[in-house]
Amino acid sequence: MSLSEFCPRYHYAVELIGRRWSGAILRAMLAGRAGYAEIRGAVPALSDTLLSQRLDELEREGIVDRTVVASSPVRVEYHLTPKGRALEQAVAEIARWAEDWLPVPEPEGSRRPSR
Amino acid sequence: MSLSEFCPRYHYAVELIGRRWSGAILRAMLAGRAGYAEIRGAVPALSDTLLSQRLDELEREGIVDRTVVASSPVRVEYHLTPKGRALEQAVAEIARWAEDWLPVPEPEGSRRPSR
Repeated sequence: MSLSEFCPRYHYAVELIGRRWSGAILRAMLAGRAGYAEIRGAVPALSDTLLSQRLDELEREGIVDRTVVASSPVRVEYHLTPKGRALEQAVAEIARWAEDWLPVPEPEGSRRPSR
Repeated sequence: MSLSEFCPRYHYAVELIGRRWSGAILRAMLAGRAGYAEIRGAVPALSDTLLSQRLDELEREGIVDRTVVASSPVRVEYHLTPKGRALEQAVAEIARWAEDWLPVPEPEGSRRPSR
């Protein structure tokens, strides 16, 4: 793939998935999280307001589909569309780079050997 | 690669490359642009201030190396470090997704058939 020219579609895409929390939400959904609470639980420190905003945005982009499940109480589920699932390789490559090149964060009160 | 757990390193990485203009700058540099003016020329609508900020930021992250070339006048070049070049696969996958799934922008005054 030639990377030699400015591509407005690439530019749009990289800033779309890089928007605050969107990348983490996509990863949780690629891993199969579907319920609102499930997604929220998979992304620490994400507020309800921000999660709603991000899911709305991803829905408008055609990346996420919102379904109302006729249970009692009614449940709302979010699933990736084919366009959303197609992001899996990109997300996996970013994750691979992060694992290869970024330092392991030290959990509070413990020490791990650095790589 | 398992995407099943929240990963702070992935989270950091996706928001780093997705920061406004950073993804486009990285792509231009992966394509071999090295001079300040060259990089600026490869990314339309990017201001000097923002380009400087982003290059500083990428340098602090260890992604970009700044070299002063002893020419007359002195020239500053920016090159990707191994950590920066390692982003090529991630950038290529985002570009592929964008080409597969995002609409081709219509240049002003012309029409192209949609995909």
